[in-house]
Amino acid sequence: MKLFSSVNDVTDINQLVNEALLHKQNPYAHQQLGKNRILGLIFLNPSLRTRLSTQKAALNLGMNVIVMNMDKEGWALEFNDGVVMNGTTVEHIREAAGVMGQYVDILGVRSFPGLVDREKDYSEEIFNKFVEFCGVPMVSLESATRHPLQSLADLVTIHELKTTARPKVVLTWAPHVKALPQAVPNSFAEWMCKADVQFVIAHPEGYALCDDFTGGATITHNQDEAINGADFIYVKNWSAYEPYGKVFGEHNDWMLTNQKLTLTNNAKVMHCLPVRRNLELSAEVLDGPNSLVVHEAGNRVWAAQAVLKQMLQAL
Amino acid sequence: MKLFSSVNDVTDINQLVNEALLHKQNPYAHQQLGKNRILGLIFLNPSLRTRLSTQKAALNLGMNVIVMNMDKEGWALEFNDGVVMNGTTVEHIREAAGVMGQYVDILGVRSFPGLVDREKDYSEEIFNKFVEFCGVPMVSLESATRHPLQSLADLVTIHELKTTARPKVVLTWAPHVKALPQAVPNSFAEWMCKADVQFVIAHPEGYALCDDFTGGATITHNQDEAINGADFIYVKNWSAYEPYGKVFGEHNDWMLTNQKLTLTNNAKVMHCLPVRRNLELSAEVLDGPNSLVVHEAGNRVWAAQAVLKQMLQAL
Amino acid sequence: MKLFSSVNDVTDINQLVNEALLHKQNPYAHQQLGKNRILGLIFLNPSLRTRLSTQKAALNLGMNVIVMNMDKEGWALEFNDGVVMNGTTVEHIREAAGVMGQYVDILGVRSFPGLVDREKDYSEEIFNKFVEFCGVPMVSLESATRHPLQSLADLVTIHELKTTARPKVVLTWAPHVKALPQAVPNSFAEWMCKADVQFVIAHPEGYALCDDFTGGATITHNQDEAINGADFIYVKNWSAYEPYGKVFGEHNDWMLTNQKLTLTNNAKVMHCLPVRRNLELSAEVLDGPNSLVVHEAGNRVWAAQAVLKQMLQAL
Repeated sequence: MKLFSSVNDVTDINQLVNEALLHKQNPYAHQQLGKNRILGLIFLNPSLRTRLSTQKAALNLGMNVIVMNMDKEGWALEFNDGVVMNGTTVEHIREAAGVMGQYVDILGVRSFPGLVDREKDYSEEIFNKFVEFCGVPMVSLESATRHPLQSLADLVTIHELKTTARPKVVLTWAPHVKALPQAVPNSFAEWMCKADVQFVIAHPEGYALCDDFTGGATITHNQDEAINGADFIYVKNWSAYEPYGKVFGEHNDWMLTNQKLTLTNNAKVMHCLPVRRNLELSAEVLDGPNSLVVHEAGNRVWAAQAVLKQMLQAL
Repeated sequence: MKLFSSVNDVTDINQLVNEALLHKQNPYAHQQLGKNRILGLIFLNPSLRTRLSTQKAALNLGMNVIVMNMDKEGWALEFNDGVVMNGTTVEHIREAAGVMGQYVDILGVRSFPGLVDREKDYSEEIFNKFVEFCGVPMVSLESATRHPLQSLADLVTIHELKTTARPKVVLTWAPHVKALPQAVPNSFAEWMCKADVQFVIAHPEGYALCDDFTGGATITHNQDEAINGADFIYVKNWSAYEPYGKVFGEHNDWMLTNQKLTLTNNAKVMHCLPVRRNLELSAEVLDGPNSLVVHEAGNRVWAAQAVLKQMLQAL
Repeated sequence: MKLFSSVNDVTDINQLVNEALLHKQNPYAHQQLGKNRILGLIFLNPSLRTRLSTQKAALNLGMNVIVMNMDKEGWALEFNDGVVMNGTTVEHIREAAGVMGQYVDILGVRSFPGLVDREKDYSEEIFNKFVEFCGVPMVSLESATRHPLQSLADLVTIHELKTTARPKVVLTWAPHVKALPQAVPNSFAEWMCKADVQFVIAHPEGYALCDDFTGGATITHNQDEAINGADFIYVKNWSAYEPYGKVFGEHNDWMLTNQKLTLTNNAKVMHCLPVRRNLELSAEVLDGPNSLVVHEAGNRVWAAQAVLKQMLQAL
């Protein structure tokens, strides 16, 4: 594997899920593979799970890791071509990415969307310019429109804990006070649409995701109907795709509660975290027996390890 | 050992001191013990000595280390239960700590007190919630009311350099321009009260420490009397315990000088650092032959290594 | 080697260049040398290339690396002696550097000049106080007046790619919108003056470098004349040495273009990066076949590795 930015970069998702679960059983089996290899992790935005789990995955594979908070420790980056750089940006992505590729064997980059210019965000300009200019295999640590390491960990979690061959998985919108990116729901949707699950998306009117990611999903505005009989519920807020980045109404009745869980098939509850308690998801659910959120975060290690192993093998 | 947050977590402080000194003689003797183990160091506040010395200790034991400045690189944490998280905090300690425990084998956390709400600070709410929710052994990198790795290094230093079986050790308040926590003096006091030393605390009126930490110490407001015949003087500023976090008066005459050292038994002078020169402690003392401050900081490595080794053995 | 702060710390620059190129051919040949050794990298300013390349060099040598952004993660440092530290500085360089030396085997420090007080900057007060008080070998990661790891990498690049025994190398001033330090041009000049090259410096009137660094160079205000027949052109902006830190005029005609390259011997174009496109250097040159900037940045690894290896051997 040379690139891991979306489900479309994966030849066989079932094989990747199985590999992740093998790493979970035997974390250090491939420790020679990463010897003298360096993983560079570049953050243009905050990170907890991705930061720690990807480091652990690389260490398990015997790699060295270099972490850099580009937004704080480096230089302000310019992404546009043809400009005269006489303003506040100090280094162009062409040089910055090119140079990073000199120092690492695999590069991971996190960069959130601006949520202002949809065309720009959905072109994945920032991530794609890193890919174009760094010259080494790249893994997304969450980009403007996708969070594939999260989605792979989510699928690993569902695969690990499902009790029926083809579980019902529901992605439900949840309330929030800020306008959040669509990256996690887009990404979860595109993975679920390729997985062996019955996939339903529920959101209030106005929050339809871009249909590039949702082909094959059942989509409804009725949350109760959606979660009826669900085996897994994936909770997440997102802002509108159209008008882009907007939020409207509070929709506090969309917060998942124990009461709502009674409609489900004793559904396991997932969230990518961080989660705002009692706003996105009730504390009673998060602290109850149905919550998978910490377990799911733990699986981020094995997802990252499966991806990094395939990249190391292709070096 | 599963927890290192105060002297009360240590079964036998002499044995721990001796172990630290053995590590100092032979730093790499236990390098297999940490193989494939990860130490996570989470900073909610600045750190120099703790940051570097704990990393070195872990590396000496063959561990991998992941450092995270939670205040800058992660998400703003919520510590209160039952709240609707519709404000500025993004992630609850329940999830944040739970997730960290998925990625590391031992977790270290630094979190300073607010110095506003005494009950809250002295409940050690923040540190204790990390302990409660992370699910892995934890070491304090300085909490609201204690700095046990510092105190263990201090005791190691005294043990290493004492010339009498039961030295006279004096903790003296020193001037400052800011209101500082009581963590270092509290912690030093509780360790000295359990050590085989003659322990005296000197401070101006109004700066009495909480007596939970000082049982067995001789306490005086007369600095000259206190340091008379002292073998070790531990210099440190702190703000008042009652009224909490307050400072009153300059007390510049409490700064230790060479003149004052003539009252002592050629006392060695200690400070946890950072120290404000010519305010807390005179440059002439810091640059003179009696200062142990850099040597003492060096012993932070062996203190941390002794603690981490006991934790690794108990995994 | 105990100190690497300028070309004057190097006994034999040709031997060091050759050693760097040997590391490039065989990066892991000396991996036992760094076992259980710690490199500390202290940044008081931003860094991309130096941060990543020096870590990689140390890892190649089997060292452990501890990175600290002193400006963000530690305490505000005081460099003056004799002051009463009752202001905003929290820790004196005497203690801070002394303590760092307890934790690392080799210390690297980056500290930019203030560009206000020339005498202070050119005394290299900050870097030299780290040297004076840390007690371990030190490598400059760019100081107020020099950037020797960059200059060594530059010389390695010229040596690697020259097609004549004694190439013509031109350092040319370039336009910018900010007042930049003289460290890179000073340093490049002092290395080139000792190297087996024909060395020319071109800059507009008013931008003469301190002649401590330029002895033996041909200096001109005529860029076209300077680059005539050049084999390598090193592009860099700097502010005036006298009046110190000042800039005057835009001199946009000093930006290197493809048109200007026709005057040269198909010159290779170098820059330390970061570079402001279409201000310091035209995009057409940076993206064209003559640009070495990314290749040159890659050589930072081997330059650092040659220096660290000599330091490890002398421990």
